[in-house]
Parts: sequence; structure tokens; C-alpha cells
Amino acid sequence: MKKIINQPTAVVDEMLEGLCYVHSDLVERLEGFEVITRKAEKTGKVGLISGGGSGHEPSHAGFVGEGMLSAAVCGAVFTSPTPDQVLEAIKAADEGAGVFMVIKNYSGDIMNFEMAQELAEMEGIDVASVIVDDDIAVEDSLYTQGKRGVAGTILVHKILGHAARAGKTLAEIKELAEELVKNIHTIGVALSGATVPEVGKPGFILEEDEIEYGVGIHGEPGYRKEKLASSKTLAEELVGKLLDSFEAKAGDRYGILINGLGATPLMEQYVFAHDVATLLSEKGVEVIYKKLGNYMTAIDMAGLSLTLIKLENDAWLEALNSPVTTAAWG
Amino acid sequence: MKKIINQPTAVVDEMLEGLCYVHSDLVERLEGFEVITRKAEKTGKVGLISGGGSGHEPSHAGFVGEGMLSAAVCGAVFTSPTPDQVLEAIKAADEGAGVFMVIKNYSGDIMNFEMAQELAEMEGIDVASVIVDDDIAVEDSLYTQGKRGVAGTILVHKILGHAARAGKTLAEIKELAEELVKNIHTIGVALSGATVPEVGKPGFILEEDEIEYGVGIHGEPGYRKEKLASSKTLAEELVGKLLDSFEAKAGDRYGILINGLGATPLMEQYVFAHDVATLLSEKGVEVIYKKLGNYMTAIDMAGLSLTLIKLENDAWLEALNSPVTTAAWG
Repeated sequence: MKKIINQPTAVVDEMLEGLCYVHSDLVERLEGFEVITRKAEKTGKVGLISGGGSGHEPSHAGFVGEGMLSAAVCGAVFTSPTPDQVLEAIKAADEGAGVFMVIKNYSGDIMNFEMAQELAEMEGIDVASVIVDDDIAVEDSLYTQGKRGVAGTILVHKILGHAARAGKTLAEIKELAEELVKNIHTIGVALSGATVPEVGKPGFILEEDEIEYGVGIHGEPGYRKEKLASSKTLAEELVGKLLDSFEAKAGDRYGILINGLGATPLMEQYVFAHDVATLLSEKGVEVIYKKLGNYMTAIDMAGLSLTLIKLENDAWLEALNSPVTTAAWG
Repeated sequence: MKKIINQPTAVVDEMLEGLCYVHSDLVERLEGFEVITRKAEKTGKVGLISGGGSGHEPSHAGFVGEGMLSAAVCGAVFTSPTPDQVLEAIKAADEGAGVFMVIKNYSGDIMNFEMAQELAEMEGIDVASVIVDDDIAVEDSLYTQGKRGVAGTILVHKILGHAARAGKTLAEIKELAEELVKNIHTIGVALSGATVPEVGKPGFILEEDEIEYGVGIHGEPGYRKEKLASSKTLAEELVGKLLDSFEAKAGDRYGILINGLGATPLMEQYVFAHDVATLLSEKGVEVIYKKLGNYMTAIDMAGLSLTLIKLENDAWLEALNSPVTTAAWG
């Protein structure tokens, strides 16, 4: 394992300290917890939290800030945060109008966030949540019943963050969130495994000329291994699966998110973007929002994912484009 | 070589097409050239351009936009752009008040940018420039006489971009630039080599437990190979060299830039940031500006660099903090 770290067991703690140091104008750490909160005056609006295992940076702490998340809970690497940590995030995010939780579809996350919800409700805080399950690659994966939650989650953060800032109620945000997750689909491809610091070696191995479609952000198995192919071939596979999943037709309007998984340089992401653009144009699909970069990573995995969001509602586009003040949403 | 590309010879062209597709609201490509220009009304101010070989994304095209660069010239991977390409960038950036060129200290870049300057002046455009040589690791490297230009260059873009937007003259910008480069020092460490697509294998090889201090952003040799060490040890080496180079003393005020070289995840960059913060605090040095992320990469090299900018002038801090509209400066 070749990593710039100290003790593998201290990675999350030291990373959060580093994050709060670099972005001391935006965020702070809840003392004694792996919870990052925004430095902003409380305005009595709905609080928005997310979180999960660490190793997906900048998710989710990089999206804490004005107009996006109120707080993020950061578990151990690839490990769900404990209910007491989630409870502290809920309490920190509460401004009197309740707290909404964006949970990726992993069994451990759901169990612990929901347990924290019960504890918070016992303390008189209204809590609601949504389960994001955007990854169309496989059903019933290693840590998931149904589909996994992956990069599309940050689009949920962005749109709900805008709604919360606009003063929407907890019930309105819940309704919006349920509608959103139906309209966000993602699929990815891995060129390498990810190495969890405490494990010290990659979670899976691909041959030098091998890729795997549909791998999860914790290295969960995908749906097909193949010889390394051109960017165009990868784009055909991912775009094809996504358009099928939406039963897309010419004239439909979408937003796209091309997400690097950690070790894949921008050079490759932009080459891939060009191929995606060509394919979507050929299909007559209209792309009215585009984003590219490392947003939901899998530590040092090489590869990328492609997310489509069906933008039937102009308010969603406005929400995606609205300015925010966070470390990672550019 | 495991990369998401098509033909290795087409990488720069396709990458620039992808970049202009994703950021179509901000930038466009000068037809027939590897030049990215900003979409903004011309306001008669000094134009600011930069560029060099590709492979350092988001540098430099990601910094084209309102408040930063007017245009970027993108050579082949790790190869200086030709004078005709630079000339087109100058012409595109000219708004009547002259064009300032930020050049990293590589012999090929200097030769070709200066040749373009002569051609532009023959066409009646005033041109001035600065050579950035922030890398304190080694003198007289593979492609450089003196010190190399690396990640500190983006701080030059940012501060000069602010000055240009504020309506400073070409002569004022030249004076500011010369002052700036004296106050920006960088040093890095590599954990792996970078693979140029047309070459197909890494430019150099490090053993599984080996790192190299002072490697350049094209894989130029550094000053010492060592066994892989902790983040804290790396921070001690890099911070120590930088403070020595400034002859820093307690009470001095600096900005820091922690720059990932392409394949190093944010997790490691933030852990490193924590160690840097601790060391600088112990030295009594005041850090009044911080930035972290992949800004000046070396394709898929693992590793990072640390830049210090001595902030004696409050106007420089204001310039660093001023908002801009670009793809990559968050």
C-alpha cells in the first residue's frame, strides 16, 4: 500500500482535521464526533444532512455549506457511521423546522440513520429521509438490498439544498426527494480496485488489460468483466444502459454528471465526456446541465461513473445551477 | 497502459472538445486551434494568457474565465505549444490594452511564447510576460535552466486575473507578476510516475515502497529517493525546505496550496494538510490563505506538491479570495 497517511486507523480523524483546517471559513467539526457542520447563522429552515462511510471524498463533507448540506456524518472508511454520530449531526443541523436525511442505499447506513432518527424524534426533532438508489448496474449487492446509492446522490444534495434554503417544509422536501430519486440513474466502470488503508491491499484485482462494468463505490462486484476498451466503447455501454433504464426518447431533457472515482485524471474524464456528448446527440437527447469531476470517489479506484438526471421540471435545473458556498461544489 | 481514451494521438483534441462541451457556458475553442478562450464580453482590459503542454489538467484551460485567464494554449501532452498556437491565443485575448503571458520555466515554452510575442508585436499588439519558476527542488532540470515552473503558477493566474479585471495596465501587471514570482515557492513528492498516452508506459518507475522528493510535473528527476514514509515525515521534509527557502521566521504570513498530482485522493491530501498545519503552527508561521485539490497535475502521477506564497501585501490576499467564474477554481 502506497499512501500519504500516518496510522491507517487515524485516517478519518486526521482527514477531517485537515478538511476543517483548509476550509475553516466554511465548516467546523463537532467536537468529539466525526461530524462536519457548516458555519452559518441558523435561520429556522429545514436542516439537510447526509453521510456514510468515508473514502468517497469530497462526499459528503465537501458539500457542507450554504445552499447545500447542513452537516455530514463521516464513518470509518467504507463503514456506516454509528447511530450516535448520526444523532449528533441531526441535532447540529436542527434549526427548529426539522431535519432531512439523504441516505445512500446500504443496509448498514439505513439501519443506523433510522435508529438515529428514532432517537432524535424522542428528543422532539422532526426527521424525514430519502433512500438514494441510483446505481442501475446490479440488484442486491454485497451491502445492499435493491440498487446501490452512488454519485447521483450529490445531485440530490444540490437540489434539496436549494429547496431547504428556499424555505420548503420537511414534507415538501420529502416529496421532492422521492420524485428526484426516481429520475436519477447512474452506472460506472472500474479500471482498478480501491485500497482501504486498514486493509492495505486492493479489495479486488483486475488484470492489466481488464475492466469491470458496474462495480460499486466500495468495490462491490459489477456485471461484466471485459478487455480494456476505448473510451467510445465504454461510453456506448454506459449511455446505452442508462437510456434504456429511462426508456429515453428523442427530445427528452437530461442533466449529466461524469464522476471520476479517485485516480482517473481529468484528461480521461473529458475524453469520455466528448464520447458521451456525441452519443447523446446522436440519440436526439437534449442535455441541459453538465457536471464533471471527482465528486463521489472510491478512495483511489481508477474509473468513472455516468449519471443522468431526467430534468422534466425547470425548478430542478434552477436548483442545480444556483450558487452555493461549499468546499467541493464548484 | 490503462486509460479511458481512444487514439493516443487524439487525446488533446478530444479532451478539449469534452471540456468545451461540459463548460459550454464558460469557454469555447478557437476553431482549428488548441486554444481555449473565455466567453465574455470584451471590456478593453489587459488580456491574460497561459499554457504549455497538456497533461496538467485542470491547468490551464480550467482557469479560463471571468476574473482569471482570457485564454489557454494547450500543447501536445508534456510538449510546448507551437508559436502559431500561442499567437492565436494572444490575438484572441487582446482587447486593445495588450496581452500578458504567464509562462512556466521550460526552455521550449519560453522559446515558443517569446516567438509568438514577436509575431504579435509585428501585428501591433503589446505583449509582456513573466516566467514562473517556483519549484525549489532542483536547479537545471531536464527541460529547464534554473528552477521549474509548477503548481504555484495557478496562484499567479489568480492574482494577475484579479489585477487585469481591476483594469491594471500591462506595465502594472508586469511589475506585480515579477514581485509575485519571487514570493511563491513549491516542492513536491512523487509516489509513482506518469504515463504519457503516446508513450504507453510510465516515464519512471518507483519501487512499491519507494518515493522520490522533488520530481517535476513531467517526471523530471527529483533530489532524493527514499523508502515510503508517513505523511508527517513527508510534511516535515517539504515544509522544512520551503521555510528555509524563504528564510521564514515566526510571525510571517503565508498562503498555502496543497496540490494533488492526479492520482492521489483527497483523503490523503487532507491528511497531509493536517500535518502541514501542525508544523507551520509549531514554527509560528501564520497561514492566512489555504487551498487544496488537483490543480496542476502530472497526468496520473501519484503524489502531491506544497506551495507557499508569502503574503506581505493585503491586496494579494484579496485577489486570491475574489470570486471568479471558471471550470476549476472553486
